Amino acid sequence: MIGLGGNNGTTLCATILANRHNIAWGTKNGIQQPNYIGSMLRASTVRIGTDDSGKDVHVPVCDVLPMVHPNDLALGGWDISGLSMDKSMERAKVLDYDLQRQVKPHMALLPPPLPSVYYPDFIAANQEARADNLIPGEDKQAHLDHIRADIRKFKQDNDLDRVVVFWTANTERYSDIIPGINDTADALLRSIKESHAEVSPSTLFAVASILEGEPFVNGGPQNTFVPGCIELAERHKAFIGGDDLKSGQTKLKSVFAEFLVNAGIKPLSIASYNHLGNNDGYNLSSERQFKSKEISKSSVVDDMVDANRLLYKGPEIGPKGAALDKGEHPDHIVVIKYVPAVGDSKRAIDEYYSEIFCGGRSTINIFNECEDSLLATPLILDLAILAELLTRVQYRKGTEGGEFQPLYSVLSLLSYMLKAPLVKPGTEVVNALGRQRNALESFLKACVGLETNTDLLLDTRIW
Amino acid sequence: MIGLGGNNGTTLCATILANRHNIAWGTKNGIQQPNYIGSMLRASTVRIGTDDSGKDVHVPVCDVLPMVHPNDLALGGWDISGLSMDKSMERAKVLDYDLQRQVKPHMALLPPPLPSVYYPDFIAANQEARADNLIPGEDKQAHLDHIRADIRKFKQDNDLDRVVVFWTANTERYSDIIPGINDTADALLRSIKESHAEVSPSTLFAVASILEGEPFVNGGPQNTFVPGCIELAERHKAFIGGDDLKSGQTKLKSVFAEFLVNAGIKPLSIASYNHLGNNDGYNLSSERQFKSKEISKSSVVDDMVDANRLLYKGPEIGPKGAALDKGEHPDHIVVIKYVPAVGDSKRAIDEYYSEIFCGGRSTINIFNECEDSLLATPLILDLAILAELLTRVQYRKGTEGGEFQPLYSVLSLLSYMLKAPLVKPGTEVVNALGRQRNALESFLKACVGLETNTDLLLDTRIW
Amino acid sequence: MIGLGGNNGTTLCATILANRHNIAWGTKNGIQQPNYIGSMLRASTVRIGTDDSGKDVHVPVCDVLPMVHPNDLALGGWDISGLSMDKSMERAKVLDYDLQRQVKPHMALLPPPLPSVYYPDFIAANQEARADNLIPGEDKQAHLDHIRADIRKFKQDNDLDRVVVFWTANTERYSDIIPGINDTADALLRSIKESHAEVSPSTLFAVASILEGEPFVNGGPQNTFVPGCIELAERHKAFIGGDDLKSGQTKLKSVFAEFLVNAGIKPLSIASYNHLGNNDGYNLSSERQFKSKEISKSSVVDDMVDANRLLYKGPEIGPKGAALDKGEHPDHIVVIKYVPAVGDSKRAIDEYYSEIFCGGRSTINIFNECEDSLLATPLILDLAILAELLTRVQYRKGTEGGEFQPLYSVLSLLSYMLKAPLVKPGTEVVNALGRQRNALESFLKACVGLETNTDLLLDTRIW
Amino acid sequence: MIGLGGNNGTTLCATILANRHNIAWGTKNGIQQPNYIGSMLRASTVRIGTDDSGKDVHVPVCDVLPMVHPNDLALGGWDISGLSMDKSMERAKVLDYDLQRQVKPHMALLPPPLPSVYYPDFIAANQEARADNLIPGEDKQAHLDHIRADIRKFKQDNDLDRVVVFWTANTERYSDIIPGINDTADALLRSIKESHAEVSPSTLFAVASILEGEPFVNGGPQNTFVPGCIELAERHKAFIGGDDLKSGQTKLKSVFAEFLVNAGIKPLSIASYNHLGNNDGYNLSSERQFKSKEISKSSVVDDMVDANRLLYKGPEIGPKGAALDKGEHPDHIVVIKYVPAVGDSKRAIDEYYSEIFCGGRSTINIFNECEDSLLATPLILDLAILAELLTRVQYRKGTEGGEFQPLYSVLSLLSYMLKAPLVKPGTEVVNALGRQRNALESFLKACVGLETNTDLLLDTRIW
Repeated sequence: MIGLGGNNGTTLCATILANRHNIAWGTKNGIQQPNYIGSMLRASTVRIGTDDSGKDVHVPVCDVLPMVHPNDLALGGWDISGLSMDKSMERAKVLDYDLQRQVKPHMALLPPPLPSVYYPDFIAANQEARADNLIPGEDKQAHLDHIRADIRKFKQDNDLDRVVVFWTANTERYSDIIPGINDTADALLRSIKESHAEVSPSTLFAVASILEGEPFVNGGPQNTFVPGCIELAERHKAFIGGDDLKSGQTKLKSVFAEFLVNAGIKPLSIASYNHLGNNDGYNLSSERQFKSKEISKSSVVDDMVDANRLLYKGPEIGPKGAALDKGEHPDHIVVIKYVPAVGDSKRAIDEYYSEIFCGGRSTINIFNECEDSLLATPLILDLAILAELLTRVQYRKGTEGGEFQPLYSVLSLLSYMLKAPLVKPGTEVVNALGRQRNALESFLKACVGLETNTDLLLDTRIW
Repeated sequence: MIGLGGNNGTTLCATILANRHNIAWGTKNGIQQPNYIGSMLRASTVRIGTDDSGKDVHVPVCDVLPMVHPNDLALGGWDISGLSMDKSMERAKVLDYDLQRQVKPHMALLPPPLPSVYYPDFIAANQEARADNLIPGEDKQAHLDHIRADIRKFKQDNDLDRVVVFWTANTERYSDIIPGINDTADALLRSIKESHAEVSPSTLFAVASILEGEPFVNGGPQNTFVPGCIELAERHKAFIGGDDLKSGQTKLKSVFAEFLVNAGIKPLSIASYNHLGNNDGYNLSSERQFKSKEISKSSVVDDMVDANRLLYKGPEIGPKGAALDKGEHPDHIVVIKYVPAVGDSKRAIDEYYSEIFCGGRSTINIFNECEDSLLATPLILDLAILAELLTRVQYRKGTEGGEFQPLYSVLSLLSYMLKAPLVKPGTEVVNALGRQRNALESFLKACVGLETNTDLLLDTRIW
Repeated sequence: MIGLGGNNGTTLCATILANRHNIAWGTKNGIQQPNYIGSMLRASTVRIGTDDSGKDVHVPVCDVLPMVHPNDLALGGWDISGLSMDKSMERAKVLDYDLQRQVKPHMALLPPPLPSVYYPDFIAANQEARADNLIPGEDKQAHLDHIRADIRKFKQDNDLDRVVVFWTANTERYSDIIPGINDTADALLRSIKESHAEVSPSTLFAVASILEGEPFVNGGPQNTFVPGCIELAERHKAFIGGDDLKSGQTKLKSVFAEFLVNAGIKPLSIASYNHLGNNDGYNLSSERQFKSKEISKSSVVDDMVDANRLLYKGPEIGPKGAALDKGEHPDHIVVIKYVPAVGDSKRAIDEYYSEIFCGGRSTINIFNECEDSLLATPLILDLAILAELLTRVQYRKGTEGGEFQPLYSVLSLLSYMLKAPLVKPGTEVVNALGRQRNALESFLKACVGLETNTDLLLDTRIW
Repeated sequence: MIGLGGNNGTTLCATILANRHNIAWGTKNGIQQPNYIGSMLRASTVRIGTDDSGKDVHVPVCDVLPMVHPNDLALGGWDISGLSMDKSMERAKVLDYDLQRQVKPHMALLPPPLPSVYYPDFIAANQEARADNLIPGEDKQAHLDHIRADIRKFKQDNDLDRVVVFWTANTERYSDIIPGINDTADALLRSIKESHAEVSPSTLFAVASILEGEPFVNGGPQNTFVPGCIELAERHKAFIGGDDLKSGQTKLKSVFAEFLVNAGIKPLSIASYNHLGNNDGYNLSSERQFKSKEISKSSVVDDMVDANRLLYKGPEIGPKGAALDKGEHPDHIVVIKYVPAVGDSKRAIDEYYSEIFCGGRSTINIFNECEDSLLATPLILDLAILAELLTRVQYRKGTEGGEFQPLYSVLSLLSYMLKAPLVKPGTEVVNALGRQRNALESFLKACVGLETNTDLLLDTRIW
């Protein structure tokens, strides 16, 4: 993990340790057991058919194919703050007091975060106070080499088959896409060599992973995957996935918008407000970083709208067949505010205002309070484990034989956990959560020869 | 429609007339056009594949197979209140003032509701004041014959191929299931002949429709379809569907619970409050009628819970293999209150309180304000049109030939619009809205030889 | 306290011990100090004038007159459950884990609850399992004598000047007011002697306190103070106060309704929903107990409505000058549900739907989540301390001299903390929170010769 | 009114016309009568004492002193848009369709808005399209003279004793306070003469009113009353009042914060979100105009916090007795967004997150939906009528006689209707709504020799 000492990084480590060592803890409601609730892989099921009596049979998603168990993960990473892992966990203020108390000695045994790269222009100025653990110098090529060596060393020290590199550090500002600088793989490599200002830390980590042949997942909203980075991954048949963990409001929105539009109801406006008080919120209180988040959150309903031209007028088409505008679209605003008092307990408020039958209106207001890092952490697990799994899937076309190949570099099957899914260039993004889930289930089942759910259940419809 | 003069009945008639005669009306926001927004058939789309460039292609659901257009429906029905249709529309207080003003002369031309049957024991005492338009006498067999004649006459007068009979009248109390009285088709017919007290008006209308060979849909929550009624439908290969229009809170709940449990999150409690001020609310302010509604609304999350035994412990199994309890289940309460001030503008408030990762909690509170009858009316249209369509679908098993048969009597494919879907006895109810939609789409597409969406989109996953 | 082992009783004891012994505790957010936040006396201020520069001067309410400090209270009481105080605290699941851990040995030193009286007809059947600590026998006179002896012993053992007896036990059903049984002081005393079925436990405790000359406060909603009980208090010049702690939803409602009506806005309906999962909620899930609560919560807006006959039509007056109805009134519903999952963390949801200018409507929906017992406990402190203070206030009329007298028996000045304030028979109840606060402030200030706030601030209005 | 053709201006005119001509209109709920609901003066009451039987006596606020009836107001004003009043009303989309329909001919008879002044730098660029009705030229002195002539002509044409000039036009950006430019009366007059860029339209209208001796009320949030403007009003003993109509969210906040802090509860954060779709929202979507609004809304809880140093630590005091910081304060954010779809139906969402007893937390989330202009318009009436009344109040100090004087120029008694009350320089702002109301009631009652409510109600406390 990049951002190992942050809220997500420390929460992931501490909860894996609690699970691994079976640490239960006291709360005012009694004894709490460690668990992996909130992990799609380990806490949800998939329908694989019916038994003899016609009853549905469901199995845990993690049992459909052989996957790594979270308890078996080796943990480590980088952070611009060198605070030890036990102290970092306390700083995060995420986990219950008595869990912190018990897991603290285990956390203290973890190696502290490795020095990371800090290019102040990319994150909020208010993060400077934390930046005390940096790879020396200003030479980006040297930084790249340093990170690559870190990856190799971690792999070797822990005797691993696979390292998944995961960005869960500060949201960066968007990188400008500049011809000759980051628009091709070669340009990007050259820009690193020349320490070009527009190469962001997250892109640097992505390039390091690609060159090491290890999958890289971007849990942040910024455009880490500049065109040159995607091309580089393709060239190396390395795997990349992103962007931005979809844990709360946006996940719900991708359900809600799908639901409404599918019901023939027309959302006129969606107003989304958030406030939170953790370091993520602090970084996002800076305008340019918020912009990355806003972009990531904004397009989530676009595919649903495009899919229903009965409700929304399509773009006007010019004489030469080109779209003259973007077509009708609901008003959509996204606000994130930093409110220290609420800490990691994020509040997400959404209003859906819709047109219903014959001029009627429907107003749905949702107030959602939840611990940001406790929602996000299981997604990191799911993404890392799925990414690893997908590196092991191979295919060949047709029935004739031929070479087996690995999957395409951009792992769009991870979309279910991501706000702004990265997909193969030129293909359409699917944001509808139901379709994302369906895709993932269908894929896993197809790997073992099971059919997709049609829900036709023909036996129940006929005599 | 039974309940023609109620909020749903008058709204359906007035809006069809507005659409048919293309009546636009003034509102404070400008001119409003009539439409069928909120109809799944006429305002939502289905993905049928991709075009040459790989872009998704969507078509209106109503274009997949030939269906009746709502404008072409002939309108009529029964009501215990004899108020003329224009006056009934005013009493309902649903439609915009200027729409009412313009559509009023058209409504006045509709025949007033036919006399209906009123057995005071089945609906709230507060409905008595409306009951001025009754088929005479106390003889249930005579009532049955009268209704059958009404159906035949309506069919003949309007020169129709098909009549769909739809219960949108007051919610009735539950009927007791009594051996020898309503548990078999023969018992039920005999009980009608003997005017047994436990035969409800809605069951009487259902039996009349079955005997006339016309499909009957129950839009209310009560158990109209006592076992004898289902057996009768099977015997006559007639079609029935129900129960209870799923327009708002429950629909959303069937989305929400599916979403949460699928994400590996464990709802601990679901608290659902409603208040409304229309005549439906007035009737439901009576305890026994509310009970019917409560039952209909209560089981909506059961199948999601049963499908995930990672989150919810299954029932304890006794030495002989039988379940000793119902297994773990979220707390679930449903409250409906009559608040005259809000009129038809129903408010539904839901709190989902869930366990997330390692003892964390998530609270989601939803406030939903919408015009009850404007949500419900398009569902009546969808159900009627789909029911009619399904009477025309025939199948044969295997590829060898043989006789084509009609579908099974209980039209479980209508589940998407229904709170407590009636299914083939012995088969499992699916409440998850995503699966209901998938089933309906898959079925319609299968009829024209299109495949179910797998969302695999393999081209986007491989090289 | 009656109900010493319940949520309020144990929370009060544990927090006083924490304050007294200065116990700080760990939470995930850091170290938490004990405090009296939420106590009107100890955490709010009163404006007593301006300083030389014209700036307002505020002092803590508890500094206006000499009052007992909560840390100096002696703690004890009765409970039908004999569980030790440390175990009772754990059962309550109210306080933070680490506070419980540290305060537990102190709690274990408190004497366990004294045996109490349990008349099953008055509380929910589901409470029976807790009733293991009862004063023996069925003789209510003997019970009364037993309680009186308990009070005397507590006073003597702790060397106290004053004992305040406080009902914070289960909500009871309403007592029927029966002529000759509880309508006069003599009748009530006779009914106790004869163990009449309609004498409730809370009335018995009130009578014991009155006869011992100690103030009694009813924190529950039931009609403990039957007419005979009030007469008895008057006869003995003893002090009583009640009913029902006003901690959350109702307190807010008494603010909100006052605000809206004062602004010339007309609430048309107020819908109030609650759910909670503590033992209070469990007891209230029984119909008759809920009824007491519903009554207590229902009249809170009545005085605001009566005060504004511009918005609400007054009652129709008959030929003889008597009101023929109750006048216009907003729809008002109150629902309380038992939802175990949320524990002591009560959720209160309110919708205010109001008529504004020229037919406009305003909808305000409030979602309120808070720890029930942490809101209630400081009110118990405030009530007990104020009740004791008021026993020491004496007055004489006019300027001529004459005997000083104690205040009237019914302490209506406590209204600020009470849902359904008990007032002198024949006088009007004030529910508006602003007026209740104003009364209390004015009274305290008048005792030391300070004027009421007029907020005229004339210096700021003139030259 | 400046902004006569806007939402507030047209709504005020149309509703006064409806009241004056007694126009009732049809809605889907039936016939609606015109009224003055929402006017504190005409729809709320004040307690003036008790009757013989001890019952409270309340009278309409407007009956305490002789006040103008809204129906008797002469209507007119300026607007940068020259659209006729009937067309402007339609553009506003505020009033019910059938009210618009009926009142339209009356509106058409009103003179169209007088040309106004438009200095583009002060309002959002998006308003330019409306600016078609301007006083010619760039000379601010000429503009001032033009406006003064307009006021005189309006007074004469309508044969009036008094003209109240009311700013209800677009929110302007804040004016910089520049020494020698607008910090003294003389400087301001000179700056007008020299057409200095920093003299805003609203200040120009205020100066015109002051010089004409007519009261001016600023219903917008900007700092119209620069120091030189206040000094000018003092010099002319003219009356001014402001700033910013307090209709919804802020009004509620001034109630809520007062309630919480008075209860000894400590708000830790207040997060306030708004969205609306009318022209006010459109103008506020510009950063500098929003800034004015944000300032106006932000200080509303300051006085409550300052009044309670038990909950909030005071500022640190330096060695010389000066405050080194502002003291502890809740986090407070205010967001306003433009969402065209919701039109004039503003949504205000507030979360109050508070610390309660011993580390507990309370979360209150409020969703408020209301028609912006229907809340604001009655406040304009109240302010205009009160302002006129206060011009007629005179006082003399002491009992010895001497000259009667008018009130001080800044009418802080109007605070109840204003978000950021302008007060006498050097005196403290009172934001607590209860205190503002108390001040106004006390003042009106004092004028007729009635005492302030102490709520002591001594008769009910003693024997």
